[in-house]
This record gives sequence, C-alpha cells and structure tokens, in this order.
Amino acid sequence: MLGAWACGGWQAVRRCASLPRAVRLRVRDALGAREPVEAVRVQGWVRSVRSQKEVMFLHINDGSSLEHLQVVADPSLENRDLTFGSAVEVQGKLVKSPHRMQNMELQAETIRVVGPCDIWSFPLKMKERHPLEYVRQFPHLRCRNNTLGSLLRIRSEATAAIHSFFQDHGYVHIHTPIITSNDCEGAGELFQVEASSEVREPAEKTHFFNVPAFLTVSGQLHLEVMAGAFTHVFTFGPTFRAENSQSRRHLAEFYMVEAELSFTESLQDIMQVMEDLFKTVTSTVLSKCPRDVELVHKYVSPAQKNKDRLEQILKNKFVTITYSEAVEILKQASQTFTFKPEWGCDLQTEHEKYLVKHCGEVPVFVINYPYDLKPFYMRDNEDGPQHTVAAVDLLVPGIGELCGGSLREERLPFLESRLQRLGLADAYQWYLDLRKFGSVPHGGFGMGFERYLQYILGVDNIKDVIPFPRFSHSCLL
Amino acid sequence: MLGAWACGGWQAVRRCASLPRAVRLRVRDALGAREPVEAVRVQGWVRSVRSQKEVMFLHINDGSSLEHLQVVADPSLENRDLTFGSAVEVQGKLVKSPHRMQNMELQAETIRVVGPCDIWSFPLKMKERHPLEYVRQFPHLRCRNNTLGSLLRIRSEATAAIHSFFQDHGYVHIHTPIITSNDCEGAGELFQVEASSEVREPAEKTHFFNVPAFLTVSGQLHLEVMAGAFTHVFTFGPTFRAENSQSRRHLAEFYMVEAELSFTESLQDIMQVMEDLFKTVTSTVLSKCPRDVELVHKYVSPAQKNKDRLEQILKNKFVTITYSEAVEILKQASQTFTFKPEWGCDLQTEHEKYLVKHCGEVPVFVINYPYDLKPFYMRDNEDGPQHTVAAVDLLVPGIGELCGGSLREERLPFLESRLQRLGLADAYQWYLDLRKFGSVPHGGFGMGFERYLQYILGVDNIKDVIPFPRFSHSCLL
Repeated sequence: MLGAWACGGWQAVRRCASLPRAVRLRVRDALGAREPVEAVRVQGWVRSVRSQKEVMFLHINDGSSLEHLQVVADPSLENRDLTFGSAVEVQGKLVKSPHRMQNMELQAETIRVVGPCDIWSFPLKMKERHPLEYVRQFPHLRCRNNTLGSLLRIRSEATAAIHSFFQDHGYVHIHTPIITSNDCEGAGELFQVEASSEVREPAEKTHFFNVPAFLTVSGQLHLEVMAGAFTHVFTFGPTFRAENSQSRRHLAEFYMVEAELSFTESLQDIMQVMEDLFKTVTSTVLSKCPRDVELVHKYVSPAQKNKDRLEQILKNKFVTITYSEAVEILKQASQTFTFKPEWGCDLQTEHEKYLVKHCGEVPVFVINYPYDLKPFYMRDNEDGPQHTVAAVDLLVPGIGELCGGSLREERLPFLESRLQRLGLADAYQWYLDLRKFGSVPHGGFGMGFERYLQYILGVDNIKDVIPFPRFSHSCLL
Repeated sequence: MLGAWACGGWQAVRRCASLPRAVRLRVRDALGAREPVEAVRVQGWVRSVRSQKEVMFLHINDGSSLEHLQVVADPSLENRDLTFGSAVEVQGKLVKSPHRMQNMELQAETIRVVGPCDIWSFPLKMKERHPLEYVRQFPHLRCRNNTLGSLLRIRSEATAAIHSFFQDHGYVHIHTPIITSNDCEGAGELFQVEASSEVREPAEKTHFFNVPAFLTVSGQLHLEVMAGAFTHVFTFGPTFRAENSQSRRHLAEFYMVEAELSFTESLQDIMQVMEDLFKTVTSTVLSKCPRDVELVHKYVSPAQKNKDRLEQILKNKFVTITYSEAVEILKQASQTFTFKPEWGCDLQTEHEKYLVKHCGEVPVFVINYPYDLKPFYMRDNEDGPQHTVAAVDLLVPGIGELCGGSLREERLPFLESRLQRLGLADAYQWYLDLRKFGSVPHGGFGMGFERYLQYILGVDNIKDVIPFPRFSHSCLL
C-alpha cells in the first residue's frame, strides 16, 4: 500500500494530493525539534541515497539549513525516480536519532517523488565537492550546490542584520533613486539608460527623461538631501559601474550600504558607526548561521583560519592612522613598491596591503586625505601646509577598501568657492541650496556589501557572493 | 553669558564645540521621556518661533517623529538667525509640560543656531500647509515639509515590516539582478542599458554585456531559479518600465515585493501569504506611526475616513471571485461600460472599479484567468471549454491591481509545448532545465510597493509616496 505513494513523474502531484495531512515541517525545524513527532511531512530535494539490504537512507535538504535531514526507510519504498536531485515529500515519524552527529531523523512511511531529476544531464553530482568556478557556469542551477546554498543564506542573514542595525538605531530608510542624472562626481564609468525603443531608432536624439540618465553610482547626495530633515538616514541598494573588469573584486552591479548623520562634527563619530555596523552584522551572521560560515571557511578559504581571526577582530578596536602617518610608514618600509609612496598621491593596492600587514592584518581606518585627491563635498580641515579633508577609508586584509566616508562640507562659502573653481556651481545649485536653509555639520559613509561578504568569508572571487554570476556565462540571466 | 552660545553662522559650529556635554536626545525620545532630565541637548530644525514679552516658544523637529518638541526660552536668547527653517542645538532641562497636548517640554538654557535659513528664498513657509503638487517642485527640499516627512517615515516603517514579515516566516532574501537580458515575457516597455562611453560613440555596435541588457521588470524568473533549492524566497527591489506616463498610478522606477513558494499546489496558499503580508505590514505601520498615518489621512485624503476603513479591512477575510464570476457580475451590471465585458478579454480599469464596488469597496482576489490572456509560465488548470490558468490578481479600491500571482507550470511537457508554440523554447532553455531536475509545484506573487502605500494612505498621486519625484521637475536629481 505504501508503495502507491512512491509514485513519480509530472502527474504525481495531483494524484497524491489526497494524502492525509501530517504536520508540515521544514528541515531546519525538524532537526531542531526537542521531542519526537508522530506524523510529520517534510519536503525537499534528495542530496544522497544509500540503499542497503535492510534499510534505505536518504538525505533531504530544503534550503532552510545546511544540514540535511536523514530519512530512514524500508527498501520497499525504493523507486527508480528516487535519485540525487529529485524532489520528494516524505511522511512519517520524527524520532530521536541514534547517531551522534544529528539530533532527529525521520522514519519514512511514505515517500513521494514530486519531481524526478535527469541525473545524466544534471551538472551537479552526488557527493562531489564542485569548485566554485565549475558551478559558476550554471547560473540557474548552482544554488542547488551546498556551498552556494550557504553563501546565499549568509547573504540573506547579513541583509536582514543590516536593516535591523539601522532600524534599532533610529535611522529612516530611504530608497535613493536608481536612475539619476547625477554622477556623484566621477565615481567611475557610468551606465546610461534609454527606453529600448529609442535605442533601436536613435535618429531622433531625444532622451526618455529629457536629459541623459544614468544608473546610480552612489546614493550619497540623495541621502544628504534627506539629512536636512532626518538626523539619521540610510539606504541599502544596488549601485553600478560600467567597468568591464575581470577582477575578482569588482562587479558592474553591486550593493552598497550608505548612511548619513546630521549634527555630526567629528569624523570619529562616523567611524564609530562604521565599526559598530561591521561588528554587529558580523556577530549576527556568526550566531545565526555558524555551520554555513564554517563550511565556507573550511572549503572555500581553508588557509585563513577565519573564525578565530574574525572573533579576534570583533573583540578589538579598529586601528586608526592618518594618511600622513600612512605615507611615513610606507616610506620607511624595507619593501620596494612599484608606485613610490609620496604625500599627495593615491594609496595603491600594494600600499594598502602593506599598511594592513604593518598594523597586524586587521581593519585599519586611514583618515585625513589630501584635499586635492578628494571630491568637492568633503570637509576642508583648514590645515597646512599639507592641506587635508576629513575623509576616511577602512582598509581590510585581502580586500583593500571596504568602506569610505567623510564629513561633508556644510559651510556655504567653502563649498561655493570650491564648486566655482571646478566649474560645477551651476550643476550643483540644488546642492548649494541645501547649505542655505538650515545647514548642519554632517557626514556619512558607504560600505560595499559584496566586499564585506568576501572579507568575512574569505571568498576569493566576488562573483561567488552574488546570487547570479555575471560576465561568466553567455546567458546573462 | 548664555547669549554667547546663541551664535549663528557658518563659523559657529567649531567655536561652540567646547559646550559642556549634556545627554543628547532625539525629539521622539525627549517627547516620550517618563521623567524630567536635568541636562539634555536636542538638535533639529525650527518649525515655529513665537516671541512674547516674557517668554519665547520654539518648535523643534529632527525627523524622528511628526510631533515637535516645544522649547520654552527667555526672550534674551532671541537671535536674528533664529528663524523658521534654521538648524539649532538647544541645551536645557527637560520637564513635564503644563500643556495638555504634550508630555514634555524643554526649558532652554542655551540656544545655538547651527545653520541659519535664508527665509526669503526658502520655498517652504512657516505655518503654511503647502499642497503636495507645490512641494513636488522642490525635490531637494520637500522632505522638510511635515506631510512628506510623515510619508517617508511610513515608507521606512513599511519597508522594515516587509523584511521582518518574510524573515519571521523563514524566507531567504535574494537580490535578483537589476540588469538582465531577460524581459520576463513582455511585461512592458523596457529600459536598455549601455556603458555611457558606448552611447557617446555608438559606431562600434557592440554591447557592454555582449548581448542587449535591460533593467529588470520583475525578479520572478530569478526567484523561480532559487525556488529550486530554497522552499521560501523573496526579493524587494526596484523594477522598471519605460512607459512615459503622466499617470498618477505609474512610475518608470518603482519597488516590488516578490515571493516564491515551493511545494505549493494550491493558489489559495499563495493568496493566503498575500493577505497575511498585507495585513501584517499594515498593522505594523498603523501601530508604529499612528500620528503620521493620521496626518496623511486628514490632510491628504480627507474624504475617505481611512483609518476606520483600514481597520475594517484588517478584520475581515478578503473576498475571492473567479474571473468567470467577475465577467458574469459585469454582464449583469446596470452600468454601461466603454469596453463590453466578455469572457476572454482583459478586465479594464472601469471593470475593476465596478467589481470592487460590487464587493463592498474591499480588496478582492480574482482568480483563474483565461489561458490565452496570461504568460507562458502560469499553470494550466486543464479545464474547459473555458480554458484557464491558476492566476490571481488582487484588486483594491481606488488603485486597481495591487498584487498579481500564479501557480507556475512545473510540468515539463506542458511548458515545453507552450514555449514551442510561442517560439520561445530556445530562449528559455534554462527555464525548461529547471523542470528537468527535481521540479516541484510552486507559485508566487508580486506586490507594487508604491501602490500599496497609495492604497493604505489614500494618496492620489504615486509621485508623492517616493523619496524623489520623477517627471515633475527639470532636475531629475
């Protein structure tokens, strides 16, 4: 009789719908149950099948956790469609497991193959640990791989933790525009947006929005608008750079967390929020998905002893040095650099690496950059002869720049003369306006979300921390 | 001596930084304090100044709540820069207010004008209730208007509530791609994306991503990919339509909440999640910002008695009718329609309006639409002679379609033959693949976030529920 439920194929679903209903449990909840449950129903995908003479073992996963639920079944429930990758519904008793490695297991009474898997053409194989480069070739199937499952659960928890952090601290969330005419002053190469009908027939030379429109490179200036009415605002959305890089640290489309704080006179206050955000989100991720983090650390970045490293970092205060101190450290280095360190020049990747190493392979704030290196909106420190602005970058091992921030120039005369010198006073009239009507000292920062994930997880290629890889497959998806 | 702190202007900030530090409180926290506090510091923007012979009253707002904090000060603290719109820092004692309308007030000891306001050119005026059309002209300043402040706080709370709803129910959050080569089967006119350098010199006829790339119109198909590994996934991000509409219900860039559920065989399960989401988020908004909602209901949509209406809706189960029943209702209507209701034709705005009215001006699910009206991915109900798919739209008064969803066709043979007939089998090979490897019955839905806000708040023009209005100003921002 039980065999009747072990029916496979496309038609099975409806035919079996009259099955008496037991408690539907997710794998995570089944594994975490304290007591046996008489009648449960678990649905998911088969991760392994082991058939013995007396008994059959299945491992079922439904994405709710890295751990699989072990199903113990009578071999009579076997079915040719019951393979790795197939989707099943198992009904039975949830009991304490005799095995040390798991809390509960499911004694199957019925197993229904909801959807079989064509294992010969399925690119993922049972019990094989495919390298990330391999699964990246299958953007539509790679989420069924254990490691990717872990990465996506971690990404989801980190996303939720970021929203909670800001909500708990009284920030107002703002959806800053994606399509904008503002280029945030040359943050990089832009994507331009037109109605596709106009791209097909460009003869008319009109723009959909009347002016050229681009995909945003940063929500900062829009947040600054909001910081004139709300003392604490943040955004967390996609940003774009049209840099066709094969780099393991760059994406054309990536997520950025940005916050802006009003009535803030000190760069240290901004840095404190950056550090708090980093530590709170990381602690949450470590406590909410410890096994997922462990898997990634073990198989994706085994050399780095990441968990200890992370816990050490969470305990200690981040190091702070000034740009001028950084240049001195570099000048005194025994190492020779391709780019000679010089006050007034940008810090190169090799310099950032050295500084982070010099400070003990921990996150390092570098503050007070040369005035002439930084965009117009950063606050003049009015110092000299080495003229600086109140800017900060957070450098981390293996990644380089994770966050950037600054105090903004809130003083109208300073801003006006700087924009005039740059020939931008007309374009930024609205920005000057903000300084005429109740201007306040303020500052903010941005953190690249994918780089953050790369850093805490030790993932080498940024394409492996996004749900759908780019530049890697003919199908863009 | 106190007068020395009442210093205005751009230079004031630094000079006053040595002020002894009292407890810094936000307006919201000051208003909610249970006990008097000896030394507090409150920062914000002046919303009104009333100077009498013996005493001066200020109202201060910092965006943390709709309500202002009343400051009571000695007239000697007056200052010519202390005007409507100026930014101030007030230090003093927080005491119980003798006024019935407020809990606490601040007895000022010092008032510092951090940033004056050029009131002659400031487009917002003290004590004037500017219409939304008026403030829409000033995208960079309108957030300083009371009503807009309320709308943005509500939007922020609703955003947080949506994330919480899905997190509480075990959904994995997925950032579906913004730039995609997928058009989700003709959901509307698309925006195309190219590197701006290639737009400037289009002679080469190459694409940045090798293929034409568009801004997403829906994350659904990407969520379906994820629904093959996670039983519950959601996304909440921007979507785009290149429809240059001056409509009060359409935007080129808008936010959509989308969810996908695996192992779901009944459309009712999807509808239940839609209804739960609507009710949970709305209850949260009503309880977290009651005064903001009240203001919007009172001044933006006074005719609609919204709060009672909303509470009624939250109490009752949403109405469900089939498409066929809907057509019958329309055919029997005494009203004459511009478009004659006929089985097999799309429901027009006038039809939706009538149906919602017929059902008592409440949200109405319409289910089981004609097969030929709907996209390829919707599940065939295998009925006849009136052939339908398991699709659902949620219609609401004043808005029309708020949500849309369906069961997806999980059966490979059904999907394959339908895509072949449409000539799309090659383009959607990856989508067919999903049905070869552990396919499960699944379904999902999307909800337009701005329409949701319009509906619960009774806001007529969709441009008033987004942080930055579009199509309304020469400056796109």
